[in-house]
Amino acid sequence: MDTIPGMSLTVVGSIAFDAVSTPFGERDRMLGGSAVHFSLAASFFTDVRVVGPVGDDFTQTELEVLENRGVITDDIERVPGETFFWKGHYEFDLNTAHTDDTRLNVFGEFQPKLSEASTAADMLFLANIQPDLQRQVRAQCGDAGFVGLDTMNLWIDIAKDSLIQAISEVDCVLINDAEIRQLTGEPNLARAAAAVMAMGPRAVIAKQGEYGAALFTPGGFFALPGFPLEDVRDPTGAGDSFAGGFLGYIDGEAEEINQQTLRTAMGYGTVLASYNVEEFGTERVSRLTRDEIEARLEALRSMTDFSV
Amino acid sequence: MDTIPGMSLTVVGSIAFDAVSTPFGERDRMLGGSAVHFSLAASFFTDVRVVGPVGDDFTQTELEVLENRGVITDDIERVPGETFFWKGHYEFDLNTAHTDDTRLNVFGEFQPKLSEASTAADMLFLANIQPDLQRQVRAQCGDAGFVGLDTMNLWIDIAKDSLIQAISEVDCVLINDAEIRQLTGEPNLARAAAAVMAMGPRAVIAKQGEYGAALFTPGGFFALPGFPLEDVRDPTGAGDSFAGGFLGYIDGEAEEINQQTLRTAMGYGTVLASYNVEEFGTERVSRLTRDEIEARLEALRSMTDFSV
Repeated sequence: MDTIPGMSLTVVGSIAFDAVSTPFGERDRMLGGSAVHFSLAASFFTDVRVVGPVGDDFTQTELEVLENRGVITDDIERVPGETFFWKGHYEFDLNTAHTDDTRLNVFGEFQPKLSEASTAADMLFLANIQPDLQRQVRAQCGDAGFVGLDTMNLWIDIAKDSLIQAISEVDCVLINDAEIRQLTGEPNLARAAAAVMAMGPRAVIAKQGEYGAALFTPGGFFALPGFPLEDVRDPTGAGDSFAGGFLGYIDGEAEEINQQTLRTAMGYGTVLASYNVEEFGTERVSRLTRDEIEARLEALRSMTDFSV
Repeated sequence: MDTIPGMSLTVVGSIAFDAVSTPFGERDRMLGGSAVHFSLAASFFTDVRVVGPVGDDFTQTELEVLENRGVITDDIERVPGETFFWKGHYEFDLNTAHTDDTRLNVFGEFQPKLSEASTAADMLFLANIQPDLQRQVRAQCGDAGFVGLDTMNLWIDIAKDSLIQAISEVDCVLINDAEIRQLTGEPNLARAAAAVMAMGPRAVIAKQGEYGAALFTPGGFFALPGFPLEDVRDPTGAGDSFAGGFLGYIDGEAEEINQQTLRTAMGYGTVLASYNVEEFGTERVSRLTRDEIEARLEALRSMTDFSV
């Protein structure tokens, strides 16, 4: 892995209004979506450009959450209609999201249009959208030296061939561990990760909810536990926040991509995900500071120190 | 934690014949039981004495599996009747054991009788047996400066008060993470561990199957992933092997019990559990070498190295 990271990161994914209910509270309508959680997390490390559609109901208030963190919103496309809407709830076991309503709205007809600045990014994250759209965006970003991809069970069910094709065109797959087993038909995680790498990527991250995340590279393995928290209020967006911390650090601060920087990136991903789940939606991350990130990364290092 | 470990470890638990079927093979009748898996794992580090009953069907062949590893079998009690028998199977998801048959046999009337040598142990492991029996053994081992306890959902269901009393009398609880939530009624793992420590113990280990294990101490947290294996054939006894590696190392080799030695002990527990699951029953651990243990511990250190 000898790619030299640059300093610009494009993400394509959903920009949404979420209605979320957990045992610890609820919100009727708040800013959400994979591209939003990703870009807020990545914004601590690098310049992030968000690509995705919003409806007439998307106001300056929501835009400012992104812009206050320096996220570049030029490629957010305004489309007549309503913004993508997701409603879900969690039981006391916060690991499983139960979807109550999904309205694609303006997202239903989404055809990604990337500005020249976005296509020039040297790093790209294809958040969880239809795999053919992921491929279109990938094709437009020919300069991207490191591309990450997330997906979900729906696409494994209804668009598996497209998904495998999309995976073959990226460098790193971030996927939850039930989905990587479903995708590969391989219940053993190490074998499942090897099967995904055989499709093309040089790194696979299995997201394991509260158990943390595991990084597989050819011949390599690294795992971090989830940061232990006594108060988790809303897990929505944890995976995208992880991806944002992970790719944001690599793009903005890693001198090269190697085992060491990938591990540090896993640490930042873990930290961003942990802050994300402490409050609803973007509430915690939108007022997070870099000092807080560093303090928690240091705590995580200490909690996993097994070198002595 | 200033206990100075000694060099003798007593374990009370089941000695069994197991019939196990997994997608990777089956055995009709093989040596098993919590005390067996524990003592084999601990035998690499210290002198272990096993306390438990066997029936007429328990032969020299089974005894020799223990004795070949130096396990002291003087307190294995021969009782007329048949040895405890467990039959179970695993699906491709090896995380869940499905019990097909349990015959307590001689274990049904078990009243632990410990020799003077066993009661003099300075460390004790109360494997998963009825909590009143655990308490009886605990009371007989007054010199034990560090006592570990395992349990299962059955005792939480039918003997919760006794179990909480037993927990209050030990130093370290090793319990799987579904059970710690069930025991405490607390879905958040950090809170559940704190609730168990409030019952008395100064350390709680949440066993998380393939995800590894997490150690909670007052103000402290440490976690290790499961050792990544492409071939897992039989997970039976993984938790007891973990406990054996953990307590065996502390008893035999740790100069004192502190964060550092507890973390190293977590490493040995992880390594012993990983070898245990590679083959059926005691097959792998009974021919394991200390060099192999050290090699895998070193690999685990490298896989979790996040210090740079």
